[in-house]
Amino acid sequence: MIQAGDLVFIWNPKKGDSFLVKVQPGQSQGTHFGQIKHADLMEHDYGEGLRTPKGEVYFLLRPTLGEYTRRLKRQTQIVFPKEAGFIIEHLNIFPGCTVVECGTGSGSLCCTFAHFVGDTGKVCTYDRREEFSALARKNAEKWGVAHRIEFNVRSLDEGFKERGADAVFLDVPTPWDYIDKAYEALAPGNHLGILVPTTNQISETLRALQEFGFADVQVVEIMLRYFKTEPNRIRPEDMMIGHTGYLIFAVKTLPLPEIKAEESPESSCAEAETEPSALPKCEAQAGDAAADAPSAVKGPCI
Amino acid sequence: MIQAGDLVFIWNPKKGDSFLVKVQPGQSQGTHFGQIKHADLMEHDYGEGLRTPKGEVYFLLRPTLGEYTRRLKRQTQIVFPKEAGFIIEHLNIFPGCTVVECGTGSGSLCCTFAHFVGDTGKVCTYDRREEFSALARKNAEKWGVAHRIEFNVRSLDEGFKERGADAVFLDVPTPWDYIDKAYEALAPGNHLGILVPTTNQISETLRALQEFGFADVQVVEIMLRYFKTEPNRIRPEDMMIGHTGYLIFAVKTLPLPEIKAEESPESSCAEAETEPSALPKCEAQAGDAAADAPSAVKGPCI
Amino acid sequence: MIQAGDLVFIWNPKKGDSFLVKVQPGQSQGTHFGQIKHADLMEHDYGEGLRTPKGEVYFLLRPTLGEYTRRLKRQTQIVFPKEAGFIIEHLNIFPGCTVVECGTGSGSLCCTFAHFVGDTGKVCTYDRREEFSALARKNAEKWGVAHRIEFNVRSLDEGFKERGADAVFLDVPTPWDYIDKAYEALAPGNHLGILVPTTNQISETLRALQEFGFADVQVVEIMLRYFKTEPNRIRPEDMMIGHTGYLIFAVKTLPLPEIKAEESPESSCAEAETEPSALPKCEAQAGDAAADAPSAVKGPCI
Amino acid sequence: MIQAGDLVFIWNPKKGDSFLVKVQPGQSQGTHFGQIKHADLMEHDYGEGLRTPKGEVYFLLRPTLGEYTRRLKRQTQIVFPKEAGFIIEHLNIFPGCTVVECGTGSGSLCCTFAHFVGDTGKVCTYDRREEFSALARKNAEKWGVAHRIEFNVRSLDEGFKERGADAVFLDVPTPWDYIDKAYEALAPGNHLGILVPTTNQISETLRALQEFGFADVQVVEIMLRYFKTEPNRIRPEDMMIGHTGYLIFAVKTLPLPEIKAEESPESSCAEAETEPSALPKCEAQAGDAAADAPSAVKGPCI
Repeated sequence: MIQAGDLVFIWNPKKGDSFLVKVQPGQSQGTHFGQIKHADLMEHDYGEGLRTPKGEVYFLLRPTLGEYTRRLKRQTQIVFPKEAGFIIEHLNIFPGCTVVECGTGSGSLCCTFAHFVGDTGKVCTYDRREEFSALARKNAEKWGVAHRIEFNVRSLDEGFKERGADAVFLDVPTPWDYIDKAYEALAPGNHLGILVPTTNQISETLRALQEFGFADVQVVEIMLRYFKTEPNRIRPEDMMIGHTGYLIFAVKTLPLPEIKAEESPESSCAEAETEPSALPKCEAQAGDAAADAPSAVKGPCI
Repeated sequence: MIQAGDLVFIWNPKKGDSFLVKVQPGQSQGTHFGQIKHADLMEHDYGEGLRTPKGEVYFLLRPTLGEYTRRLKRQTQIVFPKEAGFIIEHLNIFPGCTVVECGTGSGSLCCTFAHFVGDTGKVCTYDRREEFSALARKNAEKWGVAHRIEFNVRSLDEGFKERGADAVFLDVPTPWDYIDKAYEALAPGNHLGILVPTTNQISETLRALQEFGFADVQVVEIMLRYFKTEPNRIRPEDMMIGHTGYLIFAVKTLPLPEIKAEESPESSCAEAETEPSALPKCEAQAGDAAADAPSAVKGPCI
Repeated sequence: MIQAGDLVFIWNPKKGDSFLVKVQPGQSQGTHFGQIKHADLMEHDYGEGLRTPKGEVYFLLRPTLGEYTRRLKRQTQIVFPKEAGFIIEHLNIFPGCTVVECGTGSGSLCCTFAHFVGDTGKVCTYDRREEFSALARKNAEKWGVAHRIEFNVRSLDEGFKERGADAVFLDVPTPWDYIDKAYEALAPGNHLGILVPTTNQISETLRALQEFGFADVQVVEIMLRYFKTEPNRIRPEDMMIGHTGYLIFAVKTLPLPEIKAEESPESSCAEAETEPSALPKCEAQAGDAAADAPSAVKGPCI
Repeated sequence: MIQAGDLVFIWNPKKGDSFLVKVQPGQSQGTHFGQIKHADLMEHDYGEGLRTPKGEVYFLLRPTLGEYTRRLKRQTQIVFPKEAGFIIEHLNIFPGCTVVECGTGSGSLCCTFAHFVGDTGKVCTYDRREEFSALARKNAEKWGVAHRIEFNVRSLDEGFKERGADAVFLDVPTPWDYIDKAYEALAPGNHLGILVPTTNQISETLRALQEFGFADVQVVEIMLRYFKTEPNRIRPEDMMIGHTGYLIFAVKTLPLPEIKAEESPESSCAEAETEPSALPKCEAQAGDAAADAPSAVKGPCI
């Protein structure tokens, strides 16, 4: 039986009249076909349908995480499920891991991280704006994952407190200003994810990632198209979301140890030992290499 | 320090010369720039770089789950990360849950499920072909999640053994033949996911979902585009994957209880009790409703 | 100077307040910022701006054909510019050519054809619905190309009157019923184009094209995405059109002459002469070939 | 009958063995199934099939303009048919019009323009590189439209010779350097088109268009996906072209006449007359307006 505190997705076959509610006895949900009392929900199990006083059927479904985050109360742009799923995969989120994130925003991605890290994992989220942190906490409580999240209300200028994180995510207007902070917090070999809405921000971010020791940089865009579900008339919906944002991923690498000239004379950085202008040269060579392999970002060269 | 048995993504900035290896002392990995001994890997930590005898630098990164599944040994089409991430979200996979899947194939989705259910969860996968099951097990062992998976080598004609599953996924050529089996295995209110490569299969599957009590049917297509990573020349890569498959999602609902005519005279199914021709009528009405809301699939009407 | 009868695109920098008008002295156009008298337009040249009584500037631009067809009065779905441009290219439309089309609809594609065939070319369009023909004529008159179009109000069941057409286009709900009519009207070696909104219609149409001697069959989908035009914030618009239709193209071929067995014994159709069951066999073989080259449609085999 | 000088698309149902040839008696075309003599082509009509000595059938089709431009000999990136068709529509190309273009490149777009302007129209194309001009001329001759094209071998630094052009197109690496030249050549109210491969170039170009009097700026991206043509297995091809370029369109407007303060006191530019700092102010206001309507580019304000 559905119980007080459960999340229920009240779904009506007539598109556009579905609701996501947290069951609270005494409350009721208005619909196009009359009121549904939460108390009535508690006399049903998930999967069952109930009839409104006007005889319209609504089914009681378990909401998906995506449905939840898409509908949560927000004061900011949210991270959409099409990106969230890919982020979870690409950042190697797993039960028990520690994820560090900035900014918290309305908490959509925060809830997703918290969902997948489980009770043995932890999400440390940062936002300087008190009201967002409070809203995100409320949203996380409703989904039942707030106890896995540490909400930090402070600027990222001081950096993250965490070190050796399994994954770091930045959803801030100028991520290039905080690549150093992300580098500090992340364990070597692990993945940083970044979301930006514009291509100008991609440029800036890539430049900052090049300065630090980030490798295997990838930039992707995800497009999702819903289809109509009439079996004899299969076709995409007329409208689709044209853009939400670009995802950037990169892996933290450590500086290479110095090379003694005799050890590997054929190294392209071999002269680094012998003359002070070595670094710029080396940079130039790395630049040449990048020209051959345009989608790679050069690693550190010291 | 990297240890025997660890998975390492050996990444070279020159595109197309990266390798995913499981560290086994005594083995070595050939590259364009000479051999890398696994024993050498064990003298480094993740995130560090090492130089081949020819002075070329390779970085030692943690592979992503997506990278792993994209590169695993396969005898079948795999489920790509762009779909896998969305499936995980939409099926509400969580640490501790039980997922039921058919067919196992090369184990790409199986590994993904097993990754996210954690040690307290379980994946029950079915495939009638012994060789695929064996291959998938090997792939799961390499990723370290085989202990969370129950490999069933048998046809789905007898159905799944599980009941009340948190999620069910079908990746078979004729999913419409097994919608009843999926229905049996799934807990009410929970989500079924299906992957099909062609639109003809979408049609057939939607018809079968309509016959059973599945609600909130959604069909989506995900397109992913990689971008070049040169900051001054931001643009998508020349080529992209044009198609992998369509995803279909639906939620199991239970039959509505019979309505006594006096109870809700305004119900569209009210006549069902009183005359034998009620069902066709009711169907016709549901059909009309569907015409108004073409992307909804009508619920059961008995 | 702009003259009576000219088409003017009255463009306001504030998005969503632009108008396409045919200049008629005595008329005026309402805007968010007051009335613009057509007589005032006639005191300006294209490219100039004028101010409304409220001081708002509107520029007088030449409308594009695409803008025109997108805004024309319609009672039917129109063919969008993103498809129209590709159709023009793929059907080899040229000044002086003859294009045959069914159905006329609201005349969007009809106007486009008429625009590109010039005064030495001709468009023969068919629609059984008088009111559409009349509307399309009105739309064509406004764009100034009605004199190049022959409007036929009749069913396609009797076929097209034309033979040896340079190009044929079908925009009807069941194009598979009229492939024979298109074949009759088209010159050998020339191109047929078809627009259908659903994938079920693609299947039916491909089957019909296989029965007749159509070669080089292609099915394409075109997606167009507008970008915001703020230089420092380059990104696609939030929403885009997710679907308009699928385009199918094919070329009319003639039946192959009979082969005498001694001439080319290795021909796959060689047995056709010697036994009555030759055609089915031949079909089967063509089917095998198609399996090797799945995107090709087999040619006629008699 | 096919004649010497005709273009024939020799199409074989087995994908990947088709050829586009200009018929020259004495020549022959190698195929996977033996030689096809051009002299043999001249014994057939378009639409007919012929058999190679090995009994394989090839059909003789009319090439599309798109097929031609996609296959022409090239030393540069070409403009693809998916963009070319849209350009033709959006630049309002019509039989008899004059189009001005830079750079010529391999002549793909040049041929397309020349195809649609007909014998009464003209294409004036510019390229500083002699060898490209020569190659483009050869490609245009093969398609039979070279007589409609004026090939200018010179830098655009001196500008176009033409004035009052019906349309101008720029396909050069730094279009922002030549917006003034395009402005000079174009008739007021008419359309400029630009193709750039990167988003950085979009930014630069939009800034330049803002400086000059260009209105109704649009940036679009066109994606085209081919489908497999097996009726029972409708689905997109596995791979698609992920990117060719972005299209930018804009319309030339003329400077607004000065406003006398008493005429329209509520105009946002009203102070322009009365104080020297008017322009910056006006710019700032235009900037505010742009913030409300981010996809519009502000008009000139003098």
